[in-house]
Amino acid sequence: MTATVFDHIGLLFTADPEREEIENAALVAEDGVVRWIGPSSRAPAADERVDAEGRAVIPGFVDSHTHLVFAGDRTGEFVARMAGEPYTGGGIHDTVAATRKATIPELVTNTAFLVAEMAEQGTTTVEIKSGYGLTVEDERRCLEIARQFTEETTFLGAHVVPRGMSADEYVRLVAGPMLEACLPFAKWVDVFCERGAFDEDQARQVLAAGIKAGLQARVHANQLGEGPGVRLACEMGAASADHCTYLTDADIAALADSGVVATLLPGAEFATRSPYPDARRLIDAGVTVAIATDCNPGSSFTTSMPFCVALAVRYMGMTPAEAVRAATLGGAKALRRTDVGMLRVGTRADLVILDAPSYVHLAYRPGVPLIAQVWRGGRRIV
Amino acid sequence: MTATVFDHIGLLFTADPEREEIENAALVAEDGVVRWIGPSSRAPAADERVDAEGRAVIPGFVDSHTHLVFAGDRTGEFVARMAGEPYTGGGIHDTVAATRKATIPELVTNTAFLVAEMAEQGTTTVEIKSGYGLTVEDERRCLEIARQFTEETTFLGAHVVPRGMSADEYVRLVAGPMLEACLPFAKWVDVFCERGAFDEDQARQVLAAGIKAGLQARVHANQLGEGPGVRLACEMGAASADHCTYLTDADIAALADSGVVATLLPGAEFATRSPYPDARRLIDAGVTVAIATDCNPGSSFTTSMPFCVALAVRYMGMTPAEAVRAATLGGAKALRRTDVGMLRVGTRADLVILDAPSYVHLAYRPGVPLIAQVWRGGRRIV
Ligand SMILES: [Zn+2]
Ligand SMILES: [Zn+2]
Repeated sequence: MTATVFDHIGLLFTADPEREEIENAALVAEDGVVRWIGPSSRAPAADERVDAEGRAVIPGFVDSHTHLVFAGDRTGEFVARMAGEPYTGGGIHDTVAATRKATIPELVTNTAFLVAEMAEQGTTTVEIKSGYGLTVEDERRCLEIARQFTEETTFLGAHVVPRGMSADEYVRLVAGPMLEACLPFAKWVDVFCERGAFDEDQARQVLAAGIKAGLQARVHANQLGEGPGVRLACEMGAASADHCTYLTDADIAALADSGVVATLLPGAEFATRSPYPDARRLIDAGVTVAIATDCNPGSSFTTSMPFCVALAVRYMGMTPAEAVRAATLGGAKALRRTDVGMLRVGTRADLVILDAPSYVHLAYRPGVPLIAQVWRGGRRIV
Repeated sequence: MTATVFDHIGLLFTADPEREEIENAALVAEDGVVRWIGPSSRAPAADERVDAEGRAVIPGFVDSHTHLVFAGDRTGEFVARMAGEPYTGGGIHDTVAATRKATIPELVTNTAFLVAEMAEQGTTTVEIKSGYGLTVEDERRCLEIARQFTEETTFLGAHVVPRGMSADEYVRLVAGPMLEACLPFAKWVDVFCERGAFDEDQARQVLAAGIKAGLQARVHANQLGEGPGVRLACEMGAASADHCTYLTDADIAALADSGVVATLLPGAEFATRSPYPDARRLIDAGVTVAIATDCNPGSSFTTSMPFCVALAVRYMGMTPAEAVRAATLGGAKALRRTDVGMLRVGTRADLVILDAPSYVHLAYRPGVPLIAQVWRGGRRIV
């Protein structure tokens, strides 16, 4: 029952739509949750006092789309791409081979390293997908490892079709024995619905099987071109359609009507020299937008939510407030969580003290490490 | 006479054209300079041993273009610009007003904060300009402060024309009494040669006066549009033409023929939503390219050389090796320094241990804080 008061917060960005920004604020955390928010002048006493010294505080970031369980890196592929080779996703097979070869301790160490790196950059909730195993046993062990780090685990057996198998054959495996083996370790089912990966019917089969087994759906959709992914996500009641780089007006209308979150992953566009998704168009149409890192060794090897916020402001037409909201509250909505991504009485006390007077500096000072302190569930972790 | 051996360097990027990359290397620093570079297996004993644990080592970054002595910030202007207002440079006057009002201790504290932030991101040599004083006394005190932090100080009285004065009247002040007052604290003379700032004749007057007084020249050139700045830099024997965003074929030929360094500042294009300079075109024409942050509160409030390297690879057509070279050796050339920006026997022992197996990760892992240790003159500073 230790209570901590965070005092002298120059600017508190709560991500709470009812009062999003509060100047000269204080916040009390007790038993891991937010108990009180109000003016610094009326801050109550508590067991512990943290002086924010006039700096800004934001909710911990919710990174709702990552692929952290893998082995190996793809430096060579990156260098070749920067020299002009296009991104086709073919390098995924290299990561699959390295991941299958790796021992469980190696995979745990690599995942722990990246989760720690994320924490240092203000992320307090992270989703982790499988998808570099592509056999029943390899997918299962990747998800079991993911589960050691987060409850937001996603079964992405349908990442690509492994070599030596037809897509239909593999879909039967994914929707049958693989799903069954992974079920104990997964909250979500996901599928890469894209030309070269899984088509609309195959994606529907995978999602339907997962939903029937008790998982909730999310979809890799419309990353490399227009396609059926976004509308399928809406049809299946997914929490989120992720990437959303190429959208028709009908896709946007479907997202707005269904309430499915559009999760944008600008790190992927940065690393693949692709055009960025148009967040402005989505927001203006009433779509809820999230931002996540897509952290993976091929198409987006960043763990930095501040970097993604800066890209969103520079390239996706978002205001700084919209971008930080998308990286906190938006991510929580994409994970159907109401206990994180926002600072209001009752939410988990996940917060970041910035080395800056305003959350705007996350975009205004790009690349600069501005994360001073990170608190998760009322405890300091960075 | 303390010697330090840096051992088990997985990949040493020296920036030395004679052997730029060495795998499994070791390096010995003694009395602040590099004494020996060779294979890890033949690393000699030394007083102190630093185990790089297979990670990459690069030279400390040389940030050859910054405006660190100022007060105030311009968050509001940044938010307005991201909402669609164009960058015109007009906000400089706000910084001038705040800088004039600030006390010397305030200015020193702000500069020290930013210099420390740079060090944490691997910068071991920094150039600092005046330019937010615009009176004899205010320019002098800004340069005196800059000189406390670096010998690479630049007199930029000709940043903009202060309000209430004609350009010609101000140029006479800059090239006369202001230059005289600033001379003891400056190595370089610089001018913002751009429509709305100083035209070709005015810029030539300022540079000629500075050169006559014993300073060396560098020029803010061709940032906002094509113009005479680059060719003037070549004509006057400047060390560097900075920005180079809009270049004609004749500008590029002049740079190549004269050996003037083109210093590219991608943080400015990021923060002003401008097109990036085309480094590929410059390199292919034989021009020496440097990368710097342009750190200032208006058009590029980043201190991060790793961020600028990542932008250069993503947006300016540079390979990772070219970008890291430009951020180290290129910066040194832009400052006419041969003792920094490169690791070879005899250079200053300024080096960075990365939390990564290769320098490529500075671009491959954008936004991620990868700076593990920073050594300057053989002493650890971060
Ligand atoms: Zn993904
Ligand atoms: Zn400048």
